Amino acid sequence: MSDPRPIGVFDSGVGGLTVLSEIRDRLPYEHTIYFGDTARVPYGVRDLTEVRWFAFEIIHYLIDLDVKMVVIACNTATAAALKAAQRSFDVPVIGVIEPGARAAALETRNRRAGVLATEATVTSGAYRRAVHAFDAGISVYEQACPAFVPLIERGIVDGPELERVATGYLTPLMERRVDAVILGCTHYPLISATINRILGPGVRLISSAGQTALEVGRILSRRGFLRRPKHPDDEGRSTYICSADPEEFALLGSRFLEEEIEAAAPAAAL
Amino acid sequence: MSDPRPIGVFDSGVGGLTVLSEIRDRLPYEHTIYFGDTARVPYGVRDLTEVRWFAFEIIHYLIDLDVKMVVIACNTATAAALKAAQRSFDVPVIGVIEPGARAAALETRNRRAGVLATEATVTSGAYRRAVHAFDAGISVYEQACPAFVPLIERGIVDGPELERVATGYLTPLMERRVDAVILGCTHYPLISATINRILGPGVRLISSAGQTALEVGRILSRRGFLRRPKHPDDEGRSTYICSADPEEFALLGSRFLEEEIEAAAPAAAL
Repeated sequence: MSDPRPIGVFDSGVGGLTVLSEIRDRLPYEHTIYFGDTARVPYGVRDLTEVRWFAFEIIHYLIDLDVKMVVIACNTATAAALKAAQRSFDVPVIGVIEPGARAAALETRNRRAGVLATEATVTSGAYRRAVHAFDAGISVYEQACPAFVPLIERGIVDGPELERVATGYLTPLMERRVDAVILGCTHYPLISATINRILGPGVRLISSAGQTALEVGRILSRRGFLRRPKHPDDEGRSTYICSADPEEFALLGSRFLEEEIEAAAPAAAL
Repeated sequence: MSDPRPIGVFDSGVGGLTVLSEIRDRLPYEHTIYFGDTARVPYGVRDLTEVRWFAFEIIHYLIDLDVKMVVIACNTATAAALKAAQRSFDVPVIGVIEPGARAAALETRNRRAGVLATEATVTSGAYRRAVHAFDAGISVYEQACPAFVPLIERGIVDGPELERVATGYLTPLMERRVDAVILGCTHYPLISATINRILGPGVRLISSAGQTALEVGRILSRRGFLRRPKHPDDEGRSTYICSADPEEFALLGSRFLEEEIEAAAPAAAL
């Protein structure tokens, strides 16, 4: 049995491409469609009701393209829309918060976990709640890192400036003796080497992007929804759609995908 | 690194031995201590506050025996005490509800899942909530099966009487077109062959006992808490403790463990 329908992945912008990248690494035979809502980025400063409305528009758009599953590759949209989307659509919908939270709960030895995220995500408390759904006794320390996204989008993913900023954010977590830290923003995998070095070998760094990709694989394989290739070279295709300038999307997005995006299509009016 | 401390498992009576059996099958090198609170069985008819008090007494007792983890192998005690126990004790504590619920959420293709459980568990709505924590859009149909436990404890685990009773319970679930069914009571693995036959090959039967054992293995291995044997024959030992007549426990319990219990010790006054 083979299900050739694509997996739909969306984010407010390019950050969710780190999730797409992990999905492609783990499930190379799957077709994917990525939607970046670059005309309305960022979602973090908007009202949650508005974000839910945007998410529903995009999911409808992806379902019209016959996706077999939807991944909300955006922390803000996951917090705003995941549960409502699961109740409203027939295809499985997953977000980026629960998989990372579960991995942290499984991996912390001293039951002290840290979360690095944007201010909006920290304020929502979504990671804390998700970790506690697995183990209510884990101490969760959330650290807002407002300077990371602007640095990463300017291309600063290593060097002394990032090092200084990261040390400032990580020191309070290290003082709390956390032994597992969740990268709770889709931009952060680009700076994981620096974060890992500062935290040291005793702390496990958990990528929400990587854990979400693993969960996509589990759901598709356990439900029998994987695409079976006709021959080993028959890899999946990726399609990129965005709601603002496609060239800008391709340029910035290639860094997040760690691979060149040759062409992105503008979305028809949603 | 090897952690030789035992895993503690408890239930109101003998039902949780199906969970212990799955843990021993999957983790043969682990030492285990099973506590059956046979003096106070069943928990299902009691007040939740009282059950939480019993669970805390037993967990304190197990921690005094230096367990590295506690498994609440009882649906009622999980609903009553899991979250509070996770917050109160330093060792990891897991219950039997979340692992089965997660497996059902991962495996249902049509997002329609059934739950077979005691009346107390169905009334608590714990499985429905746990499935919805993973996917809020899954339709969950819960079926109380009050006749199963008395039949199983009388040794009736197949034959026309069980068949008739089971058909009565399963028909409403089949009419709802569920394609995944959770055995939401630790007694039910003993009658899974009959349930499987009635449901047919299109429905996946999920054992909470088996899924809980898998979760124990995940937590111990990912945290580095497994016991490493000195040589391949160095299997783990199991110790059985109960709060009422040890001979009666060993006699009834052997059927649930699918292996003879040679000796059970009476609990010292808790």
